[in-house]
Amino acid sequence: MNKPISRWPVPDLNDLPDDMKARILDVQAKAGFVPNVFLALAHRPAEWRAFMAYHDALLLKETGSVKDSNGLANSLTKGEREMIITATSAVNHCLYCVVAHGAILRIYEKKPLVADQVAINHRKADISPRQRAMLDFAMKVCLASHEIEDADFAALHAHGFSDEDAWDIAAITAFFGLSNRMASFSGMTPNPEFYLMGRVPKQK
Amino acid sequence: MNKPISRWPVPDLNDLPDDMKARILDVQAKAGFVPNVFLALAHRPAEWRAFMAYHDALLLKETGSVKDSNGLANSLTKGEREMIITATSAVNHCLYCVVAHGAILRIYEKKPLVADQVAINHRKADISPRQRAMLDFAMKVCLASHEIEDADFAALHAHGFSDEDAWDIAAITAFFGLSNRMASFSGMTPNPEFYLMGRVPKQK
Amino acid sequence: MNKPISRWPVPDLNDLPDDMKARILDVQAKAGFVPNVFLALAHRPAEWRAFMAYHDALLLKETGSVKDSNGLANSLTKGEREMIITATSAVNHCLYCVVAHGAILRIYEKKPLVADQVAINHRKADISPRQRAMLDFAMKVCLASHEIEDADFAALHAHGFSDEDAWDIAAITAFFGLSNRMASFSGMTPNPEFYLMGRVPKQK
Amino acid sequence: MNKPISRWPVPDLNDLPDDMKARILDVQAKAGFVPNVFLALAHRPAEWRAFMAYHDALLLKETGSVKDSNGLANSLTKGEREMIITATSAVNHCLYCVVAHGAILRIYEKKPLVADQVAINHRKADISPRQRAMLDFAMKVCLASHEIEDADFAALHAHGFSDEDAWDIAAITAFFGLSNRMASFSGMTPNPEFYLMGRVPKQK
Amino acid sequence: MNKPISRWPVPDLNDLPDDMKARILDVQAKAGFVPNVFLALAHRPAEWRAFMAYHDALLLKETGSVKDSNGLANSLTKGEREMIITATSAVNHCLYCVVAHGAILRIYEKKPLVADQVAINHRKADISPRQRAMLDFAMKVCLASHEIEDADFAALHAHGFSDEDAWDIAAITAFFGLSNRMASFSGMTPNPEFYLMGRVPKQK
Amino acid sequence: MNKPISRWPVPDLNDLPDDMKARILDVQAKAGFVPNVFLALAHRPAEWRAFMAYHDALLLKETGSVKDSNGLANSLTKGEREMIITATSAVNHCLYCVVAHGAILRIYEKKPLVADQVAINHRKADISPRQRAMLDFAMKVCLASHEIEDADFAALHAHGFSDEDAWDIAAITAFFGLSNRMASFSGMTPNPEFYLMGRVPKQK
Repeated sequence: MNKPISRWPVPDLNDLPDDMKARILDVQAKAGFVPNVFLALAHRPAEWRAFMAYHDALLLKETGSVKDSNGLANSLTKGEREMIITATSAVNHCLYCVVAHGAILRIYEKKPLVADQVAINHRKADISPRQRAMLDFAMKVCLASHEIEDADFAALHAHGFSDEDAWDIAAITAFFGLSNRMASFSGMTPNPEFYLMGRVPKQK
Repeated sequence: MNKPISRWPVPDLNDLPDDMKARILDVQAKAGFVPNVFLALAHRPAEWRAFMAYHDALLLKETGSVKDSNGLANSLTKGEREMIITATSAVNHCLYCVVAHGAILRIYEKKPLVADQVAINHRKADISPRQRAMLDFAMKVCLASHEIEDADFAALHAHGFSDEDAWDIAAITAFFGLSNRMASFSGMTPNPEFYLMGRVPKQK
Repeated sequence: MNKPISRWPVPDLNDLPDDMKARILDVQAKAGFVPNVFLALAHRPAEWRAFMAYHDALLLKETGSVKDSNGLANSLTKGEREMIITATSAVNHCLYCVVAHGAILRIYEKKPLVADQVAINHRKADISPRQRAMLDFAMKVCLASHEIEDADFAALHAHGFSDEDAWDIAAITAFFGLSNRMASFSGMTPNPEFYLMGRVPKQK
Repeated sequence: MNKPISRWPVPDLNDLPDDMKARILDVQAKAGFVPNVFLALAHRPAEWRAFMAYHDALLLKETGSVKDSNGLANSLTKGEREMIITATSAVNHCLYCVVAHGAILRIYEKKPLVADQVAINHRKADISPRQRAMLDFAMKVCLASHEIEDADFAALHAHGFSDEDAWDIAAITAFFGLSNRMASFSGMTPNPEFYLMGRVPKQK
Repeated sequence: MNKPISRWPVPDLNDLPDDMKARILDVQAKAGFVPNVFLALAHRPAEWRAFMAYHDALLLKETGSVKDSNGLANSLTKGEREMIITATSAVNHCLYCVVAHGAILRIYEKKPLVADQVAINHRKADISPRQRAMLDFAMKVCLASHEIEDADFAALHAHGFSDEDAWDIAAITAFFGLSNRMASFSGMTPNPEFYLMGRVPKQK
Repeated sequence: MNKPISRWPVPDLNDLPDDMKARILDVQAKAGFVPNVFLALAHRPAEWRAFMAYHDALLLKETGSVKDSNGLANSLTKGEREMIITATSAVNHCLYCVVAHGAILRIYEKKPLVADQVAINHRKADISPRQRAMLDFAMKVCLASHEIEDADFAALHAHGFSDEDAWDIAAITAFFGLSNRMASFSGMTPNPEFYLMGRVPKQK
């Protein structure tokens, strides 16, 4: 398992600018290890910072924190956002993102089976009809965004999604399309730890 | 031509945070108008800032400013970067990006015909074999990033591209894949000014 | 820009049979130049004549000149026919036809932006719902003619199209599918003049 | 078997202009019946005439009658032209053309099995390597004409094909792409006679 | 026509185990020749036996012999089962199966034209609306089984198909997907006899 | 997790014929549970028996037990056979088979990460170049068996695979294409036990 984590040179943590180093140490403290994406993208600090800022804007936003023009709030849970990422990454055949975000999905949703289901065939996953509609919309943004039309938004609204949700679904799908391409092209490998996370009860 | 520029509410320039407003006024001063993308994404300031930071990291970097592990510098001209964007956006059927970046491509390359050629069929475009190889790599990242392998990098190296160039080509393709999906899904329309830019000699 | 206009030998205008020469001089008089298709196909006079006869049968027919079995007349305007050609040629990635017929489309419709819109994504073009239905039908004939069924005709009739119109849409799409393949395969290049035609007000 | 031969009204032979009537009676005399395409397209005399002229220019030309710039003659036999038509029509799922031209192929080649083989999978057909290369080129023109490049011509030349042959292969493929779309869209049905032609020795 | 019937060694009939030999002689007695599939798979007796057992379970079952939980019986005629096989094999471009099962289809249905129609474009075949629905379901199982959903079963039920029928359609499609891949990969060629069977009245 | 294991009625183990019951109890004894496929297919005993016989012929054969005409033995390990099944099932989006056979793959190969890698993108999996060639061949059989040609066999031979291996790879791929379609169409769900098998060291 000594395959390098990227085709590109990976900088030493201690050679990184302070803000990057601080963020990485913070993640390490929470996760117990440094997810490879933080190091594999680090040789380009400006892109790294933009990538992380985009990531945080989409994934750290509090559910219910903003409202659309109809007064409907953003409603995607953090687990649902990871569901979108897992489905998108599977369609794009991105090993890093399916494994890493599948792990986070299992943890957020507390459903050890859901990530594999969503990755293999979201139509067969043990999810709600609302989540199914969410993933159908995401898959269309992923595969044929130029064909998105009124009917696609109507299908979301029928399940109670707000316009803020529609944007969130599309933006998460689009951002991880970027992430998938970067990870696949650069040969980024997932940390072994991710494969098992969320599959077994946490040991104390 | 009173079609709205987006399905989403577009904020008034004066309601935006100072940094966003400053950037937009700066663009307006240079271009003579505000490209719609700056306004259409503005209702989400955090995403807007990350988007612009990513854009700038990829497109404003000076040619020759960094070197790869073989001592080869980054060599993509600004025109070549726009060529990648135009080809990617055409494959993704993104009206906004083909029209806007096609305009910038014409201007940078001082070739009034090249953008239409690259958008319709890059194999027939009046570009160098090196640029053709660059676009072939970009198209594979765009359409089948999971199939990128050693042979694809070798094809780039055969034309003198550095590893920094390979990353730049892939990252620009990946980032505009994000941009294309956002523009198409949100119904973003290009400013009419873009359609003609770079096609006729500048009037004095 | 000295790329040849075709992989094949291009005959001298003066070596052509009289009928071909007359037609070409007539086009030149009207357009101010000889569109390359007239020369690039000319080394095969019998095919050239059949091609031009087919072209004229479809494109020169007067709107309203014939009626279908329900008494409904043919209604496609000349601009709409060029719209079909532009959309078809874009889907077939034919550089010559998108550039040349996009120019004619702009002129007939007096809409300088419409050709680029139709070529990049007809779903986003600034056209009427009736024209959208027309292009949807054309795209199905272009990409999956074997799947055309009653429902496709019903969709046309719902917008007031006659059976003569349905035939016209399909025949124009089919004929330019032929034209696209010939132009792409033979390396036919568009005249530079086409790129700008119809984009700027005619100078007097 | 009383299904109409077309969605469109089929004119009575006696109502047709003399030139069309003469041609149709001539075909009937030779074949023993009127192939439906002659009637199904006849309500549009101008298109009918162009269609037949194009057909004749491509299919009636004598083998060896012209030479390319290297002095190589056109070499496609009439059977090989029908082979191209059958393969193209199968890929386009055109019932009329596979059945009608498959019949003519069997007769010209005097091989009762070859049409079914070419239609189902030309890679498995009992044809020469030269014919296989011919069909590979035709299939690329049919399915991805915008990707045709020097290497595709080189593959033809390696089998002794002239530039005239390359044009013939492409033009036949392109013309029958038109024909396939017209037949499928209009619901043209093949005459029952075609299905059996060339499968059994002619009875005396 | 001395092409071998398979890339693999074909055992001599007399070297086969008794049960295999008996079955093959039985088929030969009925058909007048040994269909090549019986010999081309025979070098692997265990697979051969499983293949034949699966085949018989699906194709020899009597119509009306079992009932589903709603009390509806299995209703596919033997001709309809061959229709499914022919359509599936055509989509999979399997020369052996289209030719062999097309022959059986013609015989069972006593319709000499139906096999070619179903193979080229089942939408244009001269079959009942019920059979059309049957083939639409089969094609979805063949090409996108992971997208099969409630609506697909409802479409079958609307034509009176039982749940046993749904299973039969899917299982026949799936089994011949296996058969198609084996035949294509191994270069299995159809017996010349099949091409003509069922096309002409049986001679006495 | 009370979703039924199939759209179809699932027979009670005690109502099954003795041979089926014995086999199922045997599997249960070894695995600790009854894999759902054994029950979900059981309402059709004849198909069930053929399915299991085929399965056993392909998966229980001893490595090295037969030789091809060049004297080369069959060499696929049991782990490699599961690798083929996992890759095929992922391409066919079959939830049951990816989960169940991915588990067996992990166990046979003693590599807890390999199943997810093969399922998401076999090009990035931590496998040998020989195994990569094996999966490339399998994927072509799965997706385009009609295009398999000499060059595909040569690529296998270059890695030391025998003709027996080529057949095994193709037959396993073809058989699980059948299995995938049956599982997806019938709504077969994987036993929860499979998801975790082979991911953690066996507890004593």
